Amino acid sequence: MGDKRQISMAVVRRLPKYHRYLLELIRNDVDRISSKELSDRIGFTASQIRQDLNNFGDFGQQGYGYNVKDLYNEISNILGLHANYNMVIAGAGNLGQAIAGYSNFEKEGFRVKALFDINPKLIGLSIRDIEIFDIDNLRNYLHDNKVDIGIICTPRVQAQKVADVMVKNGITAIWNFAPTDLDVPRGVIVENVHLLDSLLTLTYRVNEPKLLDYINKDPEEIVEEE
Amino acid sequence: MGDKRQISMAVVRRLPKYHRYLLELIRNDVDRISSKELSDRIGFTASQIRQDLNNFGDFGQQGYGYNVKDLYNEISNILGLHANYNMVIAGAGNLGQAIAGYSNFEKEGFRVKALFDINPKLIGLSIRDIEIFDIDNLRNYLHDNKVDIGIICTPRVQAQKVADVMVKNGITAIWNFAPTDLDVPRGVIVENVHLLDSLLTLTYRVNEPKLLDYINKDPEEIVEEE
Repeated sequence: MGDKRQISMAVVRRLPKYHRYLLELIRNDVDRISSKELSDRIGFTASQIRQDLNNFGDFGQQGYGYNVKDLYNEISNILGLHANYNMVIAGAGNLGQAIAGYSNFEKEGFRVKALFDINPKLIGLSIRDIEIFDIDNLRNYLHDNKVDIGIICTPRVQAQKVADVMVKNGITAIWNFAPTDLDVPRGVIVENVHLLDSLLTLTYRVNEPKLLDYINKDPEEIVEEE
Repeated sequence: MGDKRQISMAVVRRLPKYHRYLLELIRNDVDRISSKELSDRIGFTASQIRQDLNNFGDFGQQGYGYNVKDLYNEISNILGLHANYNMVIAGAGNLGQAIAGYSNFEKEGFRVKALFDINPKLIGLSIRDIEIFDIDNLRNYLHDNKVDIGIICTPRVQAQKVADVMVKNGITAIWNFAPTDLDVPRGVIVENVHLLDSLLTLTYRVNEPKLLDYINKDPEEIVEEE
């Protein structure tokens, strides 16, 4: 056996996009698609698509294209779908409630089983039949129930404490929405959604033309303007 | 003058992370940091950090490190901060309300001025003094008010229609949370937050060891197991 193939994070981050586009094609009753057509829609080059998919096996046939449903199913498997994931959410504010209410997560096998909060006004309420418990019960809940993914929707200052409770009680996958990077032991996987990072990327791109004009100027030109 | 320097999207996507870490250092009263220490915290190599920053000018001094506040301010400028951005949100469900309620956006100069929805139960209510209007008024609102960023928090099927109204009425920057890729004219910048993509990246990483074991096996081994 040769060296183990590893998949780069850049490839991994493109996989959900393939998944999303192929679902769109299925919705539009498309059975087959060439790598050229797929490339036009998804915005990666045809050769990039072939390379990405080649990491995982042999898909499609030259000149004949991909079977949309087969490819969708294969990518679903690669992404670890076709399984059920039990999730709990710490932080039952608007964001936690939004995530608990997303019906398209449930379609893919993701089930929010419980929410946790410190706010007495929220504790005992239910969101789509999912109960909000006191955060002090998180530890016991994780002991008594099989939970695959812990979701953190608390404010920044509480996030690390919540992550510690999750990790100590067997959670190995955390989806973190708090605007901080969590410190977790090796083997625990954290996927961050830093919303402000995304918004700042948008403002950067809005301002980029002005910025590039400035940094591409000769130093002398800049001096002259002052 | 030589060729215009362009900044790669990979660099652009790292900038908000520098911004976030430097803010954390300021909060902890750190005045100076070496590229080595910054590298240890942020998880990019010191040479990567120097290369990234070199795109935008001359920062720090060899062996003396970066002035944290100066670097933070420079990166804020590069990201287009130190300006105010007026934003509107289409879709006033939990996610729209969560975004309208984020106080840390406002600290960076982002102000949500209005929400829009089709739900008569929401129209007329206010979230932190921000009124929810009928989505039919979006067009007129954009005509009468200076709005820099349109945020889409509607379900998938309404997202393109809302984007069209925004673009026709002068919006050139869209922050899209709907799980679909928007079709917009050249010059309009769209930043997508596809939450399911992020969740699928997490499940991929959870399942990766099993998957790599499988694809790294000799074909013969696989046959033997069957």
